[in-house]
Amino acid sequence: MGNRTATQPPPTGGGDLLNALVQAVGESHVLTGSGSGSGSGTPSGTGLEAYERDWRKRYHGRARAVVRPGNTQEVAQVVQVCALHRATIVPQGGHTGLVGGGTPDDSGTQVVLSLQRLNRIRELDADNLTMTVEAGCILQAVQEAAAAHQLLFPLSLAAEGSCTIGGNLATNAGGTQVLRYGNARELCLGVEVVTAEGQVLQGLSGLRKDNTGYDLRDLYIGSEGTLGIITAATLKLFPMPAATLTALATCTSPHQAVALLALARARLGATLTGFELMNAFSRELVARHLPQIPQPLWPVSGWSVLLEQSDDEGPAQAQQRLETLLGAALEAGLIEDAAVASNLAQARELWHLREAIPLAQAEEGLNIKHDISLPVSRIPSFIESTDAALQAFHPGCRLVNFGHLGDGNLHYNVQAPEGAQAAAFLHDQESAINRIVYDAVQAHGGSISAEHGIGRLKRDELAQRKDAVALGLMKRLKAALDPDGLFNPNRVV
Amino acid sequence: MGNRTATQPPPTGGGDLLNALVQAVGESHVLTGSGSGSGSGTPSGTGLEAYERDWRKRYHGRARAVVRPGNTQEVAQVVQVCALHRATIVPQGGHTGLVGGGTPDDSGTQVVLSLQRLNRIRELDADNLTMTVEAGCILQAVQEAAAAHQLLFPLSLAAEGSCTIGGNLATNAGGTQVLRYGNARELCLGVEVVTAEGQVLQGLSGLRKDNTGYDLRDLYIGSEGTLGIITAATLKLFPMPAATLTALATCTSPHQAVALLALARARLGATLTGFELMNAFSRELVARHLPQIPQPLWPVSGWSVLLEQSDDEGPAQAQQRLETLLGAALEAGLIEDAAVASNLAQARELWHLREAIPLAQAEEGLNIKHDISLPVSRIPSFIESTDAALQAFHPGCRLVNFGHLGDGNLHYNVQAPEGAQAAAFLHDQESAINRIVYDAVQAHGGSISAEHGIGRLKRDELAQRKDAVALGLMKRLKAALDPDGLFNPNRVV
Repeated sequence: MGNRTATQPPPTGGGDLLNALVQAVGESHVLTGSGSGSGSGTPSGTGLEAYERDWRKRYHGRARAVVRPGNTQEVAQVVQVCALHRATIVPQGGHTGLVGGGTPDDSGTQVVLSLQRLNRIRELDADNLTMTVEAGCILQAVQEAAAAHQLLFPLSLAAEGSCTIGGNLATNAGGTQVLRYGNARELCLGVEVVTAEGQVLQGLSGLRKDNTGYDLRDLYIGSEGTLGIITAATLKLFPMPAATLTALATCTSPHQAVALLALARARLGATLTGFELMNAFSRELVARHLPQIPQPLWPVSGWSVLLEQSDDEGPAQAQQRLETLLGAALEAGLIEDAAVASNLAQARELWHLREAIPLAQAEEGLNIKHDISLPVSRIPSFIESTDAALQAFHPGCRLVNFGHLGDGNLHYNVQAPEGAQAAAFLHDQESAINRIVYDAVQAHGGSISAEHGIGRLKRDELAQRKDAVALGLMKRLKAALDPDGLFNPNRVV
Repeated sequence: MGNRTATQPPPTGGGDLLNALVQAVGESHVLTGSGSGSGSGTPSGTGLEAYERDWRKRYHGRARAVVRPGNTQEVAQVVQVCALHRATIVPQGGHTGLVGGGTPDDSGTQVVLSLQRLNRIRELDADNLTMTVEAGCILQAVQEAAAAHQLLFPLSLAAEGSCTIGGNLATNAGGTQVLRYGNARELCLGVEVVTAEGQVLQGLSGLRKDNTGYDLRDLYIGSEGTLGIITAATLKLFPMPAATLTALATCTSPHQAVALLALARARLGATLTGFELMNAFSRELVARHLPQIPQPLWPVSGWSVLLEQSDDEGPAQAQQRLETLLGAALEAGLIEDAAVASNLAQARELWHLREAIPLAQAEEGLNIKHDISLPVSRIPSFIESTDAALQAFHPGCRLVNFGHLGDGNLHYNVQAPEGAQAAAFLHDQESAINRIVYDAVQAHGGSISAEHGIGRLKRDELAQRKDAVALGLMKRLKAALDPDGLFNPNRVV
């Protein structure tokens, strides 16, 4: 990965670097902390805080400068300037990542390259069901631009009001619609990328089929800014469903929930667009900290499933199909009870209940988070055995277990016992609990990072747990595409 | 790409290589042509013809040997042996490819590595909707194994009775179900691969979400055996649709066909599983050479669309939806007439009509084939302008234009004028006609290889037409993963 690290001083004076960056993007778009201004006119003391600290406030770095290029050509120039001055680059979108992948280290030598000014929607082709957008577009803006044409861009996640599509692609974001539409990777047909040499890969494409050589697109997607900088992408759109229905159902075990999923898939096919699982404690946390959120089928002792069905026929047909499914599930003993939202407001409340869990959990106190995935068929045995192992290790610890069951993705989080000091619990137990959980994940054929990526947080864990041949290949790819280690060093690999 | 080419003699005697291969896989699985047996007991004059000549009989090479390992470990050993003896390897599945990618060159030094004996279905996980199969499984056997569990493996193409899943993945095969289910790439969750060092990448995975590092899987998929040898894969399965309906409709222009596609997508959503286009001449060729195939809506003067709808509800609902769609299309003036198959036999006849076009075309004589893709929105203008350009260049030439309109994929083939010598036409005009077609494809933002790959046939064309930055990156990836140029040299890049 090259012989330059972020801790080596740049070979030329920092002033030269800053001047060259100002030449590339204009001085109002080169931000430096107070005392390190790039020249006259550069805002001093502009507060780089938002760029230097991650969303979870777990990492706080120090940047040499933050640059905000306005178009692809300027991104390429910034890369060339940084390569020349041997300053490493941390690409940044909406900076909402959860693994510290977009935050600079504390050397004070790195350049944060913010894509936020690349926020144009370049083209929407309704007949081709595609849309070409720049990396800095906010996800919600992309959704809204599609909706204005009665089309759907289905990527949807909690941070959609502030995350950018470039970041979504760089981290291969998941979210709540993966069951039907796939991850960010499956929603992208082509990418425009600035390489480590400051060249522009013209990979935008509105094609569903293109077998002209190696799949460069998917190599950049999910590489977390370590192989190249995605500056624009062509995205897949879908017809807007004619009706969307949401239901809540309760069952006694994850085993039942998996059986319900199989039934729902067979009955609803591709119209099944959401299948979320919540354990009882997840819902109790919401009831405790966010009592204003309605709680249907309450009190709850077992497991809850949130189902969403998106139909192309119409509300009446959709309702009939969903009710037939739930009736069959009741009859087969797969669920205890069910409630179908009878209007849009009720549907939103059900989703709100599911989406409020992370917030309620934060209110309850610090906890140990795991974003894991497993084969769906192995989730019941994973939950049963890992819950037991954790109780044996630390009696009374509380599991906030919820997630996208349809994708095999659980947010399997561990909270301190009732009344215990959360900070002390985190400090003392995180490493041992991670080991118990990740060992179990591996034993069940799962992944230690389902949708949040590796970044800084899980880099060491990955080095220990990933197949050695895979790790070796990844390092070779990094060396091949970024031989001098210019892009986001010490992240991922 | 390494300093060894297939035309250099191996540094050690060929006998050593053959002995080592026999040690790796057993003598009955090392085939050599007559006069070059690997030792006693090796079948002599076994006829390597099937391994040395491609399906279209366009290329005929000469192999040093054909080896048929029986499991992944033996594949790894063969790779190690070949690396040691500096013999390059041509991986081969069902050998049904159309671009010469699986056929050895004529040096007589290459080893053909046939995966056909790796034909076990390792696991089927119904709750997880996945299936792990070895590379040499015939596609149809994979489909049938899924169907035995009432599940669907949707990859479907003309060669399914003889092509292998390993070859399908190595070439990122397309076929008739891409509109709904995607290409081979989208149907694969993980791969097991033997690397150029003879190591085994344990990349099998039944996970829908896994963000632990770079996407190695998609790099091997579509690399046509030039980066590694896929030995097994975990595939996505789907519930078997409750009903499948097929219809034929006629319209006057590609423009109308594109408008019909948009309407069908909006009305049928994900239940629209097939949307094929045929020009009048395609159907006339079938009528001329395969008169036993029924021709509904005949005679035909314009364009025909084959629609397929796969529904999870039931035959009655499906029929109603399809008829409502066709009624709306008639009313909107998008189609002239339509016929819905009223039973399975009729549906098969409609598909047979579509699938017989290549055969009818071959009966008519040699022709110039183009497997291209375009943004769907640009297909009408592409067809109009390119048809006109070809008529201007060579008056009377006949266009056999058919394909997967839903994916933007056309098989845009050019046949000699009625009565002209096909061989002479091919010889004299192929290069100029390719230039006209491929220039038009590029001008319309399309691809010169939609689903068949590059192989040998389009390698020079790719070198001229692909984005230079992309080509440079592809060469770096080849050098990084196969530094000595062991795998399928002079193919793709």
